[in-house]
Amino acid sequence: MKEGRFRLDSNFTIGITGNVGKRVLPYASRVLQRLDRRTAILVKQGYLDSTACNANASFVIYCGNVAKLELGMDESYKLIVSPTKIELLSATDIGALRGMETFLQLVSQDELGYYVPCIDISDRPRFAWRGLLMDVARHFYPVDVIKRNIDGMAAVKMNVLHLHLSDDQGFRVECKKFPLLHQLGSNGLYYTQAQIKDIIAYADARGIRVVPEFDMPAHTTSWFVGYPKLSAGAAPFKIITGFSGFFSSMDPANKYTYKFLSAFIAEMAKLFPDEYFHIGGDENSGEEWDKNAEIQAFMKKQGFTTNDELQKYFNQQLLKILTRNGKKMMGWDEILQPGLPKDIVIQSWRGMANMVDAAKKGYQTILSNGYYIDLSQSTIFHYMNDPLPDTVNLDEQQTKCILGGEATMWSEITSDETVDSRIWPRTAAIAERLWSPASVKDVDNMYKRLEVISIQLEELGLTHIKNRDMMMRRLIGSDSIEALKTFISAVQPWKGYKRHSKGIDYTTTSPLSRVADVAVPDEAVARRFNNVVEAYLGKPCDSLKNILIAMMEKWRNNDAAMMALIDKTPALKEIEEVSGNLSALADIGLQCLDYLGANHSPEEEWTEETDIMLDKLKQPVPKSEVDIAITPGIESLFDALLKEK
Amino acid sequence: MKEGRFRLDSNFTIGITGNVGKRVLPYASRVLQRLDRRTAILVKQGYLDSTACNANASFVIYCGNVAKLELGMDESYKLIVSPTKIELLSATDIGALRGMETFLQLVSQDELGYYVPCIDISDRPRFAWRGLLMDVARHFYPVDVIKRNIDGMAAVKMNVLHLHLSDDQGFRVECKKFPLLHQLGSNGLYYTQAQIKDIIAYADARGIRVVPEFDMPAHTTSWFVGYPKLSAGAAPFKIITGFSGFFSSMDPANKYTYKFLSAFIAEMAKLFPDEYFHIGGDENSGEEWDKNAEIQAFMKKQGFTTNDELQKYFNQQLLKILTRNGKKMMGWDEILQPGLPKDIVIQSWRGMANMVDAAKKGYQTILSNGYYIDLSQSTIFHYMNDPLPDTVNLDEQQTKCILGGEATMWSEITSDETVDSRIWPRTAAIAERLWSPASVKDVDNMYKRLEVISIQLEELGLTHIKNRDMMMRRLIGSDSIEALKTFISAVQPWKGYKRHSKGIDYTTTSPLSRVADVAVPDEAVARRFNNVVEAYLGKPCDSLKNILIAMMEKWRNNDAAMMALIDKTPALKEIEEVSGNLSALADIGLQCLDYLGANHSPEEEWTEETDIMLDKLKQPVPKSEVDIAITPGIESLFDALLKEK
Repeated sequence: MKEGRFRLDSNFTIGITGNVGKRVLPYASRVLQRLDRRTAILVKQGYLDSTACNANASFVIYCGNVAKLELGMDESYKLIVSPTKIELLSATDIGALRGMETFLQLVSQDELGYYVPCIDISDRPRFAWRGLLMDVARHFYPVDVIKRNIDGMAAVKMNVLHLHLSDDQGFRVECKKFPLLHQLGSNGLYYTQAQIKDIIAYADARGIRVVPEFDMPAHTTSWFVGYPKLSAGAAPFKIITGFSGFFSSMDPANKYTYKFLSAFIAEMAKLFPDEYFHIGGDENSGEEWDKNAEIQAFMKKQGFTTNDELQKYFNQQLLKILTRNGKKMMGWDEILQPGLPKDIVIQSWRGMANMVDAAKKGYQTILSNGYYIDLSQSTIFHYMNDPLPDTVNLDEQQTKCILGGEATMWSEITSDETVDSRIWPRTAAIAERLWSPASVKDVDNMYKRLEVISIQLEELGLTHIKNRDMMMRRLIGSDSIEALKTFISAVQPWKGYKRHSKGIDYTTTSPLSRVADVAVPDEAVARRFNNVVEAYLGKPCDSLKNILIAMMEKWRNNDAAMMALIDKTPALKEIEEVSGNLSALADIGLQCLDYLGANHSPEEEWTEETDIMLDKLKQPVPKSEVDIAITPGIESLFDALLKEK
Repeated sequence: MKEGRFRLDSNFTIGITGNVGKRVLPYASRVLQRLDRRTAILVKQGYLDSTACNANASFVIYCGNVAKLELGMDESYKLIVSPTKIELLSATDIGALRGMETFLQLVSQDELGYYVPCIDISDRPRFAWRGLLMDVARHFYPVDVIKRNIDGMAAVKMNVLHLHLSDDQGFRVECKKFPLLHQLGSNGLYYTQAQIKDIIAYADARGIRVVPEFDMPAHTTSWFVGYPKLSAGAAPFKIITGFSGFFSSMDPANKYTYKFLSAFIAEMAKLFPDEYFHIGGDENSGEEWDKNAEIQAFMKKQGFTTNDELQKYFNQQLLKILTRNGKKMMGWDEILQPGLPKDIVIQSWRGMANMVDAAKKGYQTILSNGYYIDLSQSTIFHYMNDPLPDTVNLDEQQTKCILGGEATMWSEITSDETVDSRIWPRTAAIAERLWSPASVKDVDNMYKRLEVISIQLEELGLTHIKNRDMMMRRLIGSDSIEALKTFISAVQPWKGYKRHSKGIDYTTTSPLSRVADVAVPDEAVARRFNNVVEAYLGKPCDSLKNILIAMMEKWRNNDAAMMALIDKTPALKEIEEVSGNLSALADIGLQCLDYLGANHSPEEEWTEETDIMLDKLKQPVPKSEVDIAITPGIESLFDALLKEK
């Protein structure tokens, strides 16, 4: 940071010099638009074209070369802001895009107007692979959902969009050689090849690679609807609508499978230009292999005694096909078997140990364990999950094998309407973990910035905030959503796999529009409450106390309004009990606050009853699929009271 | 309406019989999803496929034939709801889509759950052409913006999407024969032909025709950037960034123009399957024709003495090209000249008189005058604008010439973020005017239903409600938008062309993110206030009085919070004065209410001062581009007080 401020006004211009290529000018045009939409400074400069290639602008971008979009590309940049000039220097155009995002993050305001603080930044990513997996198989997302999330990724400097394109529940890409894949395997919900090209071009323009995943040999029922001969099990096949209890797998003993995959991969390898091709490889139970006499005979002939050996054989055939098509193989943990070449990438989903193991064997690897954003964990949980923690002991060469990580947005209970709120803003914290030095881990500071970034992400069309009110209006059928909003500010969806195991029996057409879907992981209002409780207990003062009282009174008194609403709204019946519990919890919190530091202490009986009550109020309410998120704060108040006594 | 209710629960199923075609099953799947997302009744039936073609479902659709998507197609349907069964009968699949929307509109709730009231409906449209024009030339909209508006159109039974694809500010379709059209004429913002096909298929699946417009010979600067030889005026050309004061026109005297248009139209005629092709034809000033010696020589040679004759010649050449390509011509008022065939369609923008004139001459015509939704008029204004009012005297044959109407969403000051709020919900009222009998015109009833429909339209992804809060969060940089929301609930954007003439100097890159853009025409809260005032003055009672007091106190007291917000938010400076005015107006309203019916009367001086003050507060505040929308209510209170005195 330096002294001074660069003032933004309508005369602000961006100029580009160096090797401009196709990415920088349109990107800069969008940056100007985003700046102007935030500030309404009425920038005079219009869409940037070749006339913007000059060094006389107020913000000059010196762009070295046009980067090839690939693993390890140079994304570094320097940003120098003085009171009269902004300069962005980068070895590649992609570095320039990253620097422009930093510029937008720096835009601030004071009583005189908008400005950028004077600063010298020299920046580059810690990890080369900073990805987001979108599972478009369990739930399909229209192109615009993908595009707005690509924009979100670019805003937080991520660089790999991993598309999980096929699974038991759907095959999502038009295939010209085998059209029954998308025609019979998708319920009509698939990307045409033109749309895939559109997505790839959109991502490329933002410096983001697109890695396709076709999960094999398991997770493949949707393929078999059109091509049952691929299957180790018996036809007929239907697209799977649920999310558990099926074990389909390809037939690894049949030459047809490899002939098919050879032609299939050749087509997809052309469609997806990235050098990596993800073959999945996870969760093959082997049940259908065990039951298939021809497969058993094949194993005997080959001398295989385990299904792992057979899957290794399958992977080796895939590897030959991929190599022939100029692709490097990528897969989940399970593909790691001796004999595979060292240029494959292992995606670790089962745990850090698997990742370290891969790196020690000399395999390149990325971390996804700990970044499963479908599980509704807190932002801290993901933020503190470092692909290279101090505790891991790797030599320099092994360390280089840790390429980075990927947030995985599995979509069993996520729709086009809710997916943004499952990805954002938490993924911004994962993006920071993967870009910034390991030492950047001040959680309070992260949350403070996250709330700002969350709102800035909306300018890209992301719906993580705005769809919540929309969904409430839909449930209620009017815009009188205040009571429900108050309720939802204190709850969060069940974490982990609980919605699967204890929630409704989800299918691909379940309405993901209920309160548990409106609720978001790491709810900001509830988090603020819990933080204020800790701050107050650390150093009691009236202003914090008054904030707590206001929040808890609002929650306590909200139950009456909720009951009136629930009476009129059958869809809300399932949260009736939780609303009562929230009210009771808030009431306990208010009582604790009243006793704390006061002259009067609670009766022994009250304490015992409250203790029992708190335990009861913490129990999950069946069907609601939401937990009360302010429980930690209330419990802290109660614990503090016990200690005081 | 009949006695009884059909109860909706998780066993609800849709079955289809008859000629199913490609539209009905996916449409019914989406209807099921929309139903389930609203009600969370957890419908068990999944995506509809051929197994849904049976008559044993709870809701059975009997579908006569698959319709050809064209003017005059049969869209009628009968919907019969009994306590145990719902039946939908339609001559065509498109009638079935219309009936399914009515079904969704009927879904209601009571203490027992969700239901559809028993009813017999026999329904068909009054007019065959019920359109929405989207101007994608002045501002370009990504494909998803178009698609969600197509969904909105289908929900209110509209059937023509008219795309205004080229203008001075942009050429928005990929052209393979003349690629410089989109490459140099669009700033990179255009639809690929694959995207156009995608849009057309999407619209077709919802029973909506897509009519392309390429406006000629004027409004064509963007064409000339790549192909200056087409122009009557001199090169060089740049894409126009402003919205007034330019007079480009094609050269109607040069054979090159017709050779070009012949090849161009042949390509576009294939891309757009609808039988109508809109050639614009409006606002050709003729200035460049007057100045061009070759054109003058040509006119002399042809014996033309007016530019109208020359434009008629131009249109006749276009007509030949269109006919050769199997298309019927459509154009704005100005193309109506003797000698054109009777199967063309005239789109009337200049007034009802032009429309009647066309019909009397035997030309088919649609009304757009009065449906200019870009001008921020009230919903009533559009709703009462009947294409065939009682006052018009046409015989039966002439009456048949009135095909319907089109809402025109011109986009000079409308962005991808705000366009939905300019179209919806007001266009639902226009859709009703064009579908329902002329006798359906109860304004209070319309508004009551409009508020419900507005929320239902959100389920289609439309952003007319949810983008408002988003834009406020962006301006303020946080989610503390309450004060601004209160302010905005009392204002509306300047009406008519005032934002053009007295607002900022708009260009295609102006940030359409300011308060005037967040504000919406016919603001619902302000309208409710004005209505409550009228109701109260009609029949004073305490409950209404208390509502008025609460609303006005909120507005009056909001100024302090607004001032604090404006101090921190330079982008809000421009509404500072309006906020003060709103507060002053609300204060006057409160005083009037206090005097009304009370024992004490205001002093003469107060009345005089207030009268002067009201006049002052009504004056537009420069730069704000918003008017206070509660002024009518406040004035009514004051007038009532004057009368009482």
